[in-house]
Amino acid sequence: MVRSYTLAELAQCSGAQLRGDADCIIHGVESLNGAGSGQISFFNNSKYRRYLADTKAAAVILRPEDVSDCPCNALVTDNPYLAWARVTRCFSSESQVESGIHPSAVVDALAEVDQSASVAAGSVLAAGASIGPDVQIGPNCVIGRNVVLGRGTRLVASVTLLDGVRLGENCLVHPGAVIGSDGFGLANDQGCWEKVAQLGSVTIGDNVEIGANTTIDRGAIHDTIIADGVKLDNQIQVAHNVEIGENTAIAACTGISGSTRIGAGCTLAGGVGVVGHIELADGVHVSGASVVSRSLREPGVYTGGVLAMPHKTWQKNIARIKQLDDMARRLKKLEKALADRSGEK
Amino acid sequence: MVRSYTLAELAQCSGAQLRGDADCIIHGVESLNGAGSGQISFFNNSKYRRYLADTKAAAVILRPEDVSDCPCNALVTDNPYLAWARVTRCFSSESQVESGIHPSAVVDALAEVDQSASVAAGSVLAAGASIGPDVQIGPNCVIGRNVVLGRGTRLVASVTLLDGVRLGENCLVHPGAVIGSDGFGLANDQGCWEKVAQLGSVTIGDNVEIGANTTIDRGAIHDTIIADGVKLDNQIQVAHNVEIGENTAIAACTGISGSTRIGAGCTLAGGVGVVGHIELADGVHVSGASVVSRSLREPGVYTGGVLAMPHKTWQKNIARIKQLDDMARRLKKLEKALADRSGEK
Amino acid sequence: MVRSYTLAELAQCSGAQLRGDADCIIHGVESLNGAGSGQISFFNNSKYRRYLADTKAAAVILRPEDVSDCPCNALVTDNPYLAWARVTRCFSSESQVESGIHPSAVVDALAEVDQSASVAAGSVLAAGASIGPDVQIGPNCVIGRNVVLGRGTRLVASVTLLDGVRLGENCLVHPGAVIGSDGFGLANDQGCWEKVAQLGSVTIGDNVEIGANTTIDRGAIHDTIIADGVKLDNQIQVAHNVEIGENTAIAACTGISGSTRIGAGCTLAGGVGVVGHIELADGVHVSGASVVSRSLREPGVYTGGVLAMPHKTWQKNIARIKQLDDMARRLKKLEKALADRSGEK
Repeated sequence: MVRSYTLAELAQCSGAQLRGDADCIIHGVESLNGAGSGQISFFNNSKYRRYLADTKAAAVILRPEDVSDCPCNALVTDNPYLAWARVTRCFSSESQVESGIHPSAVVDALAEVDQSASVAAGSVLAAGASIGPDVQIGPNCVIGRNVVLGRGTRLVASVTLLDGVRLGENCLVHPGAVIGSDGFGLANDQGCWEKVAQLGSVTIGDNVEIGANTTIDRGAIHDTIIADGVKLDNQIQVAHNVEIGENTAIAACTGISGSTRIGAGCTLAGGVGVVGHIELADGVHVSGASVVSRSLREPGVYTGGVLAMPHKTWQKNIARIKQLDDMARRLKKLEKALADRSGEK
Repeated sequence: MVRSYTLAELAQCSGAQLRGDADCIIHGVESLNGAGSGQISFFNNSKYRRYLADTKAAAVILRPEDVSDCPCNALVTDNPYLAWARVTRCFSSESQVESGIHPSAVVDALAEVDQSASVAAGSVLAAGASIGPDVQIGPNCVIGRNVVLGRGTRLVASVTLLDGVRLGENCLVHPGAVIGSDGFGLANDQGCWEKVAQLGSVTIGDNVEIGANTTIDRGAIHDTIIADGVKLDNQIQVAHNVEIGENTAIAACTGISGSTRIGAGCTLAGGVGVVGHIELADGVHVSGASVVSRSLREPGVYTGGVLAMPHKTWQKNIARIKQLDDMARRLKKLEKALADRSGEK
Repeated sequence: MVRSYTLAELAQCSGAQLRGDADCIIHGVESLNGAGSGQISFFNNSKYRRYLADTKAAAVILRPEDVSDCPCNALVTDNPYLAWARVTRCFSSESQVESGIHPSAVVDALAEVDQSASVAAGSVLAAGASIGPDVQIGPNCVIGRNVVLGRGTRLVASVTLLDGVRLGENCLVHPGAVIGSDGFGLANDQGCWEKVAQLGSVTIGDNVEIGANTTIDRGAIHDTIIADGVKLDNQIQVAHNVEIGENTAIAACTGISGSTRIGAGCTLAGGVGVVGHIELADGVHVSGASVVSRSLREPGVYTGGVLAMPHKTWQKNIARIKQLDDMARRLKKLEKALADRSGEK
């Protein structure tokens, strides 16, 4: 059950400075314009300034320069969204999960499950699996042979981890994620495909979050590697032998082809595609739906694509793409002709 | 088992007008050119007119203006595809499912399951779940705490609904769908990401269909909302706090980013990407694989992208994209030069 | 457990010619620059030639023309990657699976399971399912009514096959795949959508591989068809009544719309989109992230899209797309004006 907090407690947990009534009781979070008594909100975006003056919130998290506009108690910090993240976690209603193995779970005699871990109904654990302290395995998960889950890692439900996959501590894996499926390795024999066995696995660091229905393939010889602090949204595809650096965050529906290395502290927005066998430097940021076809060795923002416009505008103009080279040549020729004429004069 | 119908019965169920033998027995559906005796077909697209005159079907569903071309019995209507939809449902072989809870299902003592509902093998229901009359929960589903399923809703198999998700009546959810997974909310603390707890859930109306492996995230503060009559195809990603209006249909592999509001009666074709925090008006139609990066406040058709062409054509022209601005400026300069000359003369 | 092989055994299994010590014991595979004693590697890409001379591998698979550069034993062949594929499979550690039905699996009394097949924990098989010899059904799979699985086919785990789906022999289906979900068929009735029942199913040939979280919808009237030897990567969407020809390989995140026919021996790279009701000839190759909007009747390579570039370059140039038609017209006008002047002179 969710409990209440004094504003002083929330100030402490969020690292923000309290301004106002330390004993004010906060029982929930709300948006600025929806909040009422007993609720805390945050102000991080000047677009919503009009809501600040009139908010009925009991307290607002905001920057020092905005305190004068705040009609109520405040938690003051240079990073309101970070303080907000911490406060929201205070109000998360995640249930207490009792440790132990549900009678309907099927745990191989050669799997090791720490006494403080929980294995929910319908989950199946193969031989050699090693489940650390405080791990939570939700309902209907499948855990392959020799899988290792570090302390505090949680599989929400319906997660499939195949043989030899290793997750570090405090990871969070959402339903439908598949980790350690075979990489797509095929050799062609006169038109028919033969499978290249995928002999590596997947190694995942600490504090990694993996979204719903995301897939991460096992490596061909060595492991696919996801470093500490990486955050992957839903429906992402990570091919074999990809490496993703620390604290890189990737939004939904992005696909990364085989053997590509993505640096640390990168962000890839939604729907991005990255070809195989290239490298993205640390601090590369790729805009939504862009396709990255070559190594990006400098940090910075990269973008591609032609965005949606009224269909008639698109139709009228896009066919000209196929004439671009011709247009460029004709333009050059005209320039030359005109320059020649000027010379003539 | 699938039964047979008289043509009169199919006329009644489909709302079309019978023309011909009311007692003709129909035992199945087929395409115009494949149909034989006892089978019904439909004619909706003039592209297939050549098949109409020669069809061996026992009956054809078609428009009044096409009756004269029909060599057999007819069901006549202004909307043949709609009548066809209704006739196909008569021949659907969906099995009778017995009500009751399979002994291998794990239902928490604090979950409520209506007596007329069915829970298949391997499904797991948490405390507080409320399962309405005639609901069908297929095999290996996971139902979180306090999930509410309205009358007649069906989860085909392997569906995961997380805590607090609510579906209305007569919804249909296909395998692998995940509803209520955490939204992708992260605050940055000097390069590391901290999680923003996702405290909302997902509210889904009546008559909603959700495709295989589609994911719908829970909201950050308030719920993600899918209105009545929305139809979502496979592998769609709906981020936190998205709202989708009534009777909007979205094709496969489309992704919608957080807090975006999509109006009623919209269609998004396959592979569309929509950025976050924008609004699409009622009646917006987005072409396949387009990326929508700003609010579309007028109904109409919107398109983007550069379609596939022979690789050499693409290669020759696409590099010129990076010269477009330069070309535009040079073109303007030439026009000016020529105009100046004309003035000179 | 993985065993060791003599080089002579590996030569025989891979079809390559042995050059060197036939009795050399090989216990594993490695990359050229990582390999040590007892390990075999391969050289297929001149980019890595610098690693060949210094390799510490016990043997290398390579082409006849590269033998002179090889410092160790060699397996010589015109198709090193194919020989490599065969050698990797020798070292695959796939576990022996015991035949039989796990006590926690739920198998309908009217399902037929061959004595040599295995059904793992948590899987559910409906009436009429027919499971052939040596089939392996991994944990937590769902098998619908009348599903047919041919000899040697393997469902890794968490696979869902719906009513009437048929797979041939020696197929491999990865976790989270959903085969036989309803096609997206909807008829519009004054703004509301009515479902068109999807009365076909899915027919899949022999030696087909289907990736993690890939979805293949059942057909509307007839079946969706995947021919022998097709290889599908992860998160692919195949809509109703698509037909995919023999030995076509499709990379991850590609979506194929309804009723489209893809020929034999095609390759579609990752993230491709294909519209519905078109045909791709045999031997068509589509580059990554391209959108195919019309039939491609000639074999060859097809490409589309605007690749990622530095954001400022993109921003400066991409807006000009909407002026392309205007620019083309103005260019033509200038050319005419200049030609007229030349005439004047």
